[in-house]
Amino acid sequence: MLVFRYEDQMVVVDAGLMFPDEELLGIDIMVPDISFLIENASQVKAILLTHGHEDHIGGLPFILPALMHVPVYGTRYTLGLVRSKLEEHGLLQQAKLVTVQPRQVEQIGEFRVEFIHVTHSIVDAVMMAITTPVGTILHTGDFKIDSSPLDGQVMDLPTIAEYGSRGVLALFSDSTNSERPGFTPSETTVIERLDEIFHHARKKVVVCCFTSSIHRIQIVLDLAEKYNRKVVLAGRSMLANTKTASDLGFLRVPEGILIRPQDARKLPPERTAMLMTGSQGEPMAALPRLAVGDYKNIVIEPGDSVVISARVIPGNEKTISRMINHIYKREAHVYYDDGSLPPVHVSGHASAEELKLMLNLVRPKFFVPIHGEYRQLFRHAELAKSVHAVKKKVVIAESGDRIQFTADDAEIVGKVPVGRIFIDEGSLDEVEEVVVRDRRHLAEDGIVLPVLAIDKATGKLEGQVEIITRGFVFVDDDDSLMNDSKARVLRTLEESTFEEVTDWAMIKEKIRTDLRRYLFKQTSKRPLVLPVILEI
Amino acid sequence: MLVFRYEDQMVVVDAGLMFPDEELLGIDIMVPDISFLIENASQVKAILLTHGHEDHIGGLPFILPALMHVPVYGTRYTLGLVRSKLEEHGLLQQAKLVTVQPRQVEQIGEFRVEFIHVTHSIVDAVMMAITTPVGTILHTGDFKIDSSPLDGQVMDLPTIAEYGSRGVLALFSDSTNSERPGFTPSETTVIERLDEIFHHARKKVVVCCFTSSIHRIQIVLDLAEKYNRKVVLAGRSMLANTKTASDLGFLRVPEGILIRPQDARKLPPERTAMLMTGSQGEPMAALPRLAVGDYKNIVIEPGDSVVISARVIPGNEKTISRMINHIYKREAHVYYDDGSLPPVHVSGHASAEELKLMLNLVRPKFFVPIHGEYRQLFRHAELAKSVHAVKKKVVIAESGDRIQFTADDAEIVGKVPVGRIFIDEGSLDEVEEVVVRDRRHLAEDGIVLPVLAIDKATGKLEGQVEIITRGFVFVDDDDSLMNDSKARVLRTLEESTFEEVTDWAMIKEKIRTDLRRYLFKQTSKRPLVLPVILEI
Repeated sequence: MLVFRYEDQMVVVDAGLMFPDEELLGIDIMVPDISFLIENASQVKAILLTHGHEDHIGGLPFILPALMHVPVYGTRYTLGLVRSKLEEHGLLQQAKLVTVQPRQVEQIGEFRVEFIHVTHSIVDAVMMAITTPVGTILHTGDFKIDSSPLDGQVMDLPTIAEYGSRGVLALFSDSTNSERPGFTPSETTVIERLDEIFHHARKKVVVCCFTSSIHRIQIVLDLAEKYNRKVVLAGRSMLANTKTASDLGFLRVPEGILIRPQDARKLPPERTAMLMTGSQGEPMAALPRLAVGDYKNIVIEPGDSVVISARVIPGNEKTISRMINHIYKREAHVYYDDGSLPPVHVSGHASAEELKLMLNLVRPKFFVPIHGEYRQLFRHAELAKSVHAVKKKVVIAESGDRIQFTADDAEIVGKVPVGRIFIDEGSLDEVEEVVVRDRRHLAEDGIVLPVLAIDKATGKLEGQVEIITRGFVFVDDDDSLMNDSKARVLRTLEESTFEEVTDWAMIKEKIRTDLRRYLFKQTSKRPLVLPVILEI
Repeated sequence: MLVFRYEDQMVVVDAGLMFPDEELLGIDIMVPDISFLIENASQVKAILLTHGHEDHIGGLPFILPALMHVPVYGTRYTLGLVRSKLEEHGLLQQAKLVTVQPRQVEQIGEFRVEFIHVTHSIVDAVMMAITTPVGTILHTGDFKIDSSPLDGQVMDLPTIAEYGSRGVLALFSDSTNSERPGFTPSETTVIERLDEIFHHARKKVVVCCFTSSIHRIQIVLDLAEKYNRKVVLAGRSMLANTKTASDLGFLRVPEGILIRPQDARKLPPERTAMLMTGSQGEPMAALPRLAVGDYKNIVIEPGDSVVISARVIPGNEKTISRMINHIYKREAHVYYDDGSLPPVHVSGHASAEELKLMLNLVRPKFFVPIHGEYRQLFRHAELAKSVHAVKKKVVIAESGDRIQFTADDAEIVGKVPVGRIFIDEGSLDEVEEVVVRDRRHLAEDGIVLPVLAIDKATGKLEGQVEIITRGFVFVDDDDSLMNDSKARVLRTLEESTFEEVTDWAMIKEKIRTDLRRYLFKQTSKRPLVLPVILEI
């Protein structure tokens, strides 16, 4: 989230969420702390969305209730995703959503905002030119320069160039891939590889990708049609997002190609394909559960082809690697981003040469690298210096920094309070109340640590399940809630496959989810549940 | 560790250790469970070492006490490392070490063992041809086919080819890089890049690599000499390993080039270079501590050049990334394996084309891919099938599997008990007793969980440190040991820099180490210490 302020008017660009590091186990998602916006609520004139990825729109349901008067601007597909999100949280009625399209100009108070089409891994993405009395700011959002995008809609470089030649005060540009040399390959390079995989497949083809990768999903649907396969969509968000995209005309679903999992079992495997969630090895998503034999109506069988057509989000390497091991043990072929060409996945972010191209087109007075860790910001700054594209200054800012721009200068002049708000989300199966958790009040709900020793060779529990608590309702060890909780943990173990029980990350997550749900039902409290597994 | 058995005679190849996953926080290292060898101790005729990496020799101090009568065979440098390891554990006097050299043949019972020189990221590495009455087995150890190694000692392909043409029963070959297409670049390609970095450096040059990478260390010493810089060695194992290598003549240390850290401060930075440990972001190693400003006598300053000349061990990605962020914030240049060429690091393991070359040279009856996770073994098996190099069968085995070979067949015929033994090692600063921990007896020492809430923005502790225990000596909350433990945690926080306190992985490790040491002193017990940090 980025806020632009001129005198007493503010516009907000994006409102994303983050998934926590493993170290923060016990919470589901994190959204920005917006106390600064709430304090200045009357000054907030608009929320402008660049595109529909979770790290750009996912915070809206938690942020909007405090800013209900603020209109939200976005393109058709972006707002399509926002709509289903707000509906789920019962916020759609009150929200003011304003659909915009590329080249459209909106005057919002002192801000003149032009939306400019960019290519990215999601459809209908835009960047913004925000003209203020001090000068024009270009904010790229996420982008790559794809010269052969699947939908033929190339990036609007002429408009960017036009702004560049008229003079830009500051460029805020995507640093995600600033460490990668060269150009990011076009989305269409993936077709070649996937076609090859479909061509050689003698059994089922399973493709796992992000559910917002509509281009990627289109490629798979087209190939399924070409090779005469029916398609199963697996995973709740895969179903929801493809429906949104197809309703809005961004996805062409061939007539009659979609079938249900239970119907796929009646077809020969070489007539079926599956599109599913779980590319990051998330324990509750479709592919990771398939990999350990715990998914209804779908089984990975010897000779199947499984394609992980997504990037590895840093921190998920080991989990994904374990998932791949599990799939190989089922004697399927697994295709993933291992450096072989053509690739099964291409990034949606610009590499070094594209970033230089953007910098050279814009030639701003000031440059602020955004999106990425400090290392990526620093490298992006170095790229800018190497091409001498920045007329005055590069400013590397961190979360919360206030940069003050005048026509001639840019300085970090202080910090606003920032932070991350932790959220316990309802589970997939039941609609639970979403809890915005303030860790300061953790003591109110307490901590529950189920401790169990599992024999890695047999997958069997050794000894008892122990439950350690602090600040939670348990009084002493013979409490029936305590005993029932132990029984609940035992049941989770019994309901899990051998592969799940011996995969510590996965079984911890299952125990955590089940026990947390159980305790909430019994006590209406949400203690932090941190399973501890001892390997013996 | 791999065991070859013929009738009632066994030879063991390698005895390594592993570092645990984060999920096993609370223990330091893991070594193989050798109960099978102990039960059959009289049958064990030799331990044969391929090379001196920790994952091949690190288990010896924990395994050898039970097999003191067994001779250990290795090359000069490998045994050099083994010697200092055994000396540390007071085992050197009793150990029977047998130095061998490439092309040497040893008859050990029914096994005729020839040691064959291979190229790898460590010097003096060998593979083995083990001839038994049933046939000859080739075990590659770790290898790459480096046609221009730094020491000019190319891999002994002629001897391998000779075995191949005489007929090989089974090939056991390194699968680590089986997923990588092409050839692994030569070690000498790194010189070009490091020379460039030294050439352009205007301040200190800091190079971080594995301490066993003697070739890499030689390159840095040579460049320091060329560019007239003195060299500081930082990190205990960096000092120890370079001494071993130079004593044995594997490392040429230019006269007078090494200086102490405190003397480096008296020289202008452009006259100094540093070689140090910590490439994996280990919280207690040199570079990670430098990165957060917590290292005696050395500071990273703006304009310094920091080179991480090592691979990223899977699972360490986030930790290393955080370390790089910290270094960039000190405005140093950081060079790491980011895909740019020439590389700052090359792998020591053979890529797909080299693996095929090995398979084609040997053309065994049976092939057993070894070293790597299941995914790498599977991919190596697929490579073997693609070149039709295996005459009869590929066997993918997992830890503990017994493969029975006859002249015509290879079958997995059962499992021996295997597992991992957990070890709590003494700290670096004090020589503590090493404890081989049996998790079954965990209850004896108990669990201690220090729980604290830290404000990420300020690095300040919020509220009290809480300590939750189970099965440990604490009786109730006013116990003085409990209060002193809280004080010990507070002191760890006070003694840490802001960057350390706000890096959860790092501060957890510091709290764990300090509190564990304190509790051991007070109680002679070693509870599992699991710090829980709540971010607020």
